[in-house]
Amino acid sequence: MADRTLQMTLLYDFYGELLTDRQRELFDLYYNEDLSLAEIAQQYGISRQGVRANLMHAEKTLLQMEEKTGFAAGFEQRQSYAARGGEIIRTLRESHGDEKTLAALDELERILDVMKG
Amino acid sequence: MADRTLQMTLLYDFYGELLTDRQRELFDLYYNEDLSLAEIAQQYGISRQGVRANLMHAEKTLLQMEEKTGFAAGFEQRQSYAARGGEIIRTLRESHGDEKTLAALDELERILDVMKG
Repeated sequence: MADRTLQMTLLYDFYGELLTDRQRELFDLYYNEDLSLAEIAQQYGISRQGVRANLMHAEKTLLQMEEKTGFAAGFEQRQSYAARGGEIIRTLRESHGDEKTLAALDELERILDVMKG
Repeated sequence: MADRTLQMTLLYDFYGELLTDRQRELFDLYYNEDLSLAEIAQQYGISRQGVRANLMHAEKTLLQMEEKTGFAAGFEQRQSYAARGGEIIRTLRESHGDEKTLAALDELERILDVMKG
């Protein structure tokens, strides 16, 4: 999958609700269903250029939202911190076998898992 | 501070960048500087009703953004999970005195602190 597609689908997960219904439909067909511009154009009875313009407008909205709020970047940062936290917890588990400590580490792991989302 | 003010200033921290410059100025004077509608109206040479309409529009934008994305709710949830994680870490510190474990717990605490933001 191209970097652009990855980036766009990530931003769509965060800001998709801010697009119009039509933009969401086209976005979904193009990025998730992998239809071509021509195929989408045929399906909607509009021009290929019309589809492209609509998609570009949607992409611009998603990029601007991220530029102004940075929520997707924060999410990715949390994923990576949570992964590091998971490593630490696994190491601690290896050196501490008592039940109370293991239960506490389990809870910490669940907390990291919820917080990364 | 009224609940409404607390809610609005929290949402403003998240979505303030999405308001117009004028909306941000009025919002800041009203919610942060605690000026009255009449005082703001005088300062800008517009009507009190004009100030109120502008503020209400800004508030609506902030509320809609939260309704559609839920980022502020996610933030508050992370604060509370991080607080619980901090408690667990403090309890673990009390029962494990070895340097390696303490260093690991320190790092976990820093991770929670970054992830809650």
